[in-house]
Formats: sequence, structure tokens, C-alpha cells
Amino acid sequence: MSLTVVGSIAFDSVSTPFGERDRMLGGSAVHFALAASFFTSVRVVGPVGEDFGDDEIAVLESRGVRTGDIERVPGGQTFFWRGHYEHDLNVAHTDDTQLNVFGDFEPKLSGDSRGADMLFLGNIQPELQRGVRAQCDAGMVALDSMNLWIETARDSLVEAIAEIDCLMLNDAELRMLTEEPNLARASRAAMEMGPSVVVAKRGEYGAALFTADGSFAIPGYPLEDVLDPTGAGDSFAGGFLGYLDSVGAVAGETADPHLRRGMAYGSVMASFNVEGFGTERVQRLREDEIDDRLREFKRLTHFDERPVEIPNPR
Amino acid sequence: MSLTVVGSIAFDSVSTPFGERDRMLGGSAVHFALAASFFTSVRVVGPVGEDFGDDEIAVLESRGVRTGDIERVPGGQTFFWRGHYEHDLNVAHTDDTQLNVFGDFEPKLSGDSRGADMLFLGNIQPELQRGVRAQCDAGMVALDSMNLWIETARDSLVEAIAEIDCLMLNDAELRMLTEEPNLARASRAAMEMGPSVVVAKRGEYGAALFTADGSFAIPGYPLEDVLDPTGAGDSFAGGFLGYLDSVGAVAGETADPHLRRGMAYGSVMASFNVEGFGTERVQRLREDEIDDRLREFKRLTHFDERPVEIPNPR
Repeated sequence: MSLTVVGSIAFDSVSTPFGERDRMLGGSAVHFALAASFFTSVRVVGPVGEDFGDDEIAVLESRGVRTGDIERVPGGQTFFWRGHYEHDLNVAHTDDTQLNVFGDFEPKLSGDSRGADMLFLGNIQPELQRGVRAQCDAGMVALDSMNLWIETARDSLVEAIAEIDCLMLNDAELRMLTEEPNLARASRAAMEMGPSVVVAKRGEYGAALFTADGSFAIPGYPLEDVLDPTGAGDSFAGGFLGYLDSVGAVAGETADPHLRRGMAYGSVMASFNVEGFGTERVQRLREDEIDDRLREFKRLTHFDERPVEIPNPR
Repeated sequence: MSLTVVGSIAFDSVSTPFGERDRMLGGSAVHFALAASFFTSVRVVGPVGEDFGDDEIAVLESRGVRTGDIERVPGGQTFFWRGHYEHDLNVAHTDDTQLNVFGDFEPKLSGDSRGADMLFLGNIQPELQRGVRAQCDAGMVALDSMNLWIETARDSLVEAIAEIDCLMLNDAELRMLTEEPNLARASRAAMEMGPSVVVAKRGEYGAALFTADGSFAIPGYPLEDVLDPTGAGDSFAGGFLGYLDSVGAVAGETADPHLRRGMAYGSVMASFNVEGFGTERVQRLREDEIDDRLREFKRLTHFDERPVEIPNPR
């Protein structure tokens, strides 16, 4: 099984109440790829500038991520984002965005990337997402987007959504896209645009999944030490789709238990992401830590509905 | 087992995008008592005015709620709240509050109310909560409050919290009370004030429970038809504590599976509450509907962590 991701490859300068970092490795494709690399074989597609060096490539390759479709643009500068968070870590404040090499990006997928079993279209311009989607005949295609594209490129985004299988948005974005304040109704309206699966990301509150067969909801993994939420949504998507690719998931044919377990793996990968700045925590993550946290996550979210089986403490 | 609740008994005038009602039965003690009445024997303590009639009493008594400690104040008017919700049903906008008979309320519990196994101190002035708590030696005492008391009567509220076992607040209120933005840390700080159990209510996002032994989190029950969220938090508390009283829960001695199941029952009762205006939906609720929804809630929140047991769909 293999998974291709297209999205931003970036340098991020981030400040939170718990510290700050300057020009650290980031971007949706990077966070996604590192999370997914624990489950399946991942290829990254996207442009970087001459400021993107061997150290950054090494972070990806040390996790087995294939970097052959990362295009280094001569004379170019890598996408740059500067932002900060206040005490409410659910809200990112953008201070600066420099598209740089993304301004002229024309995605060209190699044969291997085109042949992937699964494709993730990270949060970039909808027209670029469509250009990539047209080159790849994956069995399952997922798409992330953001309020900017809903506001400035809605028609193009709706066309992109019509061509994919799984839509992954924040709940506020789902409501904005569909103009429906109720999340369950918004998700149903989004499914009517094309996708058979809709995932509503809810930050620290977890995530919900909707299909034609029903819904599934999972709270966020409760953490005492959240240092930097940047990339949490992409790490969620990486855990979710990475796991699904590892079991050979295909749009419209994937068993519900796999989708649920994918949601749990996504939550676990997001929880690790936010424990460090940028990719720091995921870079030093071990597979056994993922298994341990998944078990702990099950323990702290499950309940038993049969009262008679538990002895009365009194 | 029996449960005493003190809190507001009110007339509410509510407007939401889905309709409006004038002077319908409401108040924290009413929503709590109706929800808890499906699990255990409930007594309501609180004042009403001469405008509170036999029809309102009948709503409570038809669910078996004991109303002998509802004090009718001669010449008085019942507590009144007017509010509205916009498309974001998580935010209540208060347009008018008339304390009326609550302004001079001096709680006096009957022998039966004093002898309850469990006590819920609904959201009223902290000094009134302390006055009731001092009269009742229940095995488990829970308390709800709100931002108003955190801002205007903090010292008194902290003294009240030191005297109870289970604190139930919205997550924003927990953060405000403890001045700690991280919810897990805020809950730990709240436990250091006295309670052995802290429940963070999160509106449509569900709820989280914290004890010395660990935590438990549950998403909100996903609904397509939410008409009026007024009273959801009190219905949650009624389901949670009503279930715990039914199994003889005692502070510090209650098995974790009971607390978890209580959280699930609380969520289920809150989900019914919001499907109608005021108490309309809960008034016509049947016990088998509760059991059905609890099973459905388990189905849509549980996942299996063992990948090998599920056949690959491909």
C-alpha cells in the first residue's frame, strides 16, 4: 500500500505561551507525511526553495518518507508562515504568510506518486488540488481546505470536493461551506457534494465522522502539556489515512470498524504532534508509544452500558 | 436511594432560530429533577411565587418528583429568565433576569430532604449553596456554578467548593475559576480546592471527567434537530447524579465504571433535553428511549484497538 500527499512544505515561525521557534520545518504535507509514515509508505509532492536543505530532507527520509517528488525551485524561497497562539490554543493568529515557490507551483507527479493507493490533498489552492487529483487514480482521495478558500475560491473548491471521496475540515469550516449551523446536517450537505466520508475536526474537542451509514464521534485525547498545536489537523489526517491505507481501504468499501480505528489513530497522532513544537515530538516518536496511547485512549473513552454487571460499591 | 436538588425554579422565555416560547417551566432544579427522576427518587428545594400553579407542580409530580420542599412565597413572583440563541446554539444571550422570590430565599430543608443520599447544589448564589449544604449530610454532594459567581462572589464560591465532592462546570468556567487555560490542569487545580471529582461540561462537544485516578472523556451525542439548549447542562447533571444515586454512589468510593456510565447517561439526558423547548421533550420521554439511545451512543463512540481481528475489505 502507498500514500501520496500534496500540500505545503514550509518553514514556520511560531510563538505560543510556552515558547517560540524560528523557521522550523512545517507545512501540511510535512506534518501529514511524518504521521502517516508510522503506518504506510508515503510520498510527498510539493515545491521548496533553495533555502530548503539536506537537514530538512533528512527529517522526512529518516522516517522512510519518499522525497523524490519534492521539487527544488532554483532561486526560490520555501513557503513561510509566521503565527502565534494566545492562551486559547484553539485559535491560530497568522502574522505573515509568504507563498514564495507555491505561487507558481504546477504539480507534476512521478509515476510512483500517480500509482499510489491513496491520495491526500492537503490545504492548498483548490485548483492545485484538482490538478493533482487529475493525475492520480487512487482508490481513496481525501481533501483538506480552509476558510480562506471557502471565501475566495468557493466554486473551485466545490468542484474539487465533487471529485474526492473523503472531506476533512474543521467543524467551523464545514458549517461555513454548507451554510448549515448544525454539524450533522452540515456533514450530510457536504456528502451531497460528492464525498462518501466527511470528517469534522474539532481541535481539542476531538473529531466526528459521517458516512451514509451513520456517524462516529471521538473526544480529543486529554493532555496536560500542549506546547504548539500547529500541524495537529494534518497529523490527525496522517494517522487516519495512513492507518486506512495500511489496511487497503477503498472509498465506499471500507468497513466501519476500520474508519473508527482510523479516527482513533488520527487523534493519537495529533496528540503527539501538539506535545512539541513543529515536528519535534513526532520526530522522536516510537511505534510502541502509539500503541500504548491508543490503548490508553480506548480506556479513557469507553463505557459499559450494562449496569447489572458491576457490583455496587456500597 | 434519594437525591435532593436545590436550584432555580423558573419561568423561561426563550427564542432560538427554530422557534420561541413564552414563560415556560424551567430553572436548573426543574431540568435536573426531571432528568434524575428516570433513575432515582428526587426532592426539589426552592422558592416560587404565586404565579407558579398546579400545572407546573403537576409536571414534576407526574414524574414522581417530591415537591413538598417547594416554598410558595405569598405575594411573590417566580424567578424569570428571558434569553435567545443565534445560529451558534452554544452561546446563550441573556435579555432579562428577574430574581424575584430568589432575592430573599432562605433555604430550609425538611427532614426528608436533609436525609437524602445525594445532594445537587444547582447554579444559585454560593452562600445559598453553602446554607443548603450545611443542612444535608449526603454521601455525595455536587455543585454547579457560573461565570457570574466566579466574577462577583469568588471567595464565597471557593468556600462552597471546598465543602463538596463533585464540581460540575463548563470548561470555560473551570478555566476562569482556576486561571489555568489547559483543561486537564484546570481540573487538577479545582480538585486541589476540595472535590474528588471534577466534571467539565463542553456543550455540544460533550464532557470530561477527572478524578485522582485519571480521566474520562465523551463526545456530545450528535443530533440533527436541536431546538433549544436551555437546561442541557442541568439535564446532564440530572442523568449523571441520578444514575450514580441509583447505584448507591458515595464520594471517594465509587467505582470508575459507574462514573463513566453516569457520564454517558448524563449525555443522553442532555441530548433529549435539547430536542424540544424547555422541558417539552423530557416530559414525554420513555425509559426505553433512554436505554436505546445509550446503546446507540456506545455504538457511535466506541472503537476496537486490535487491527488483526477485522478482515481486510480489499
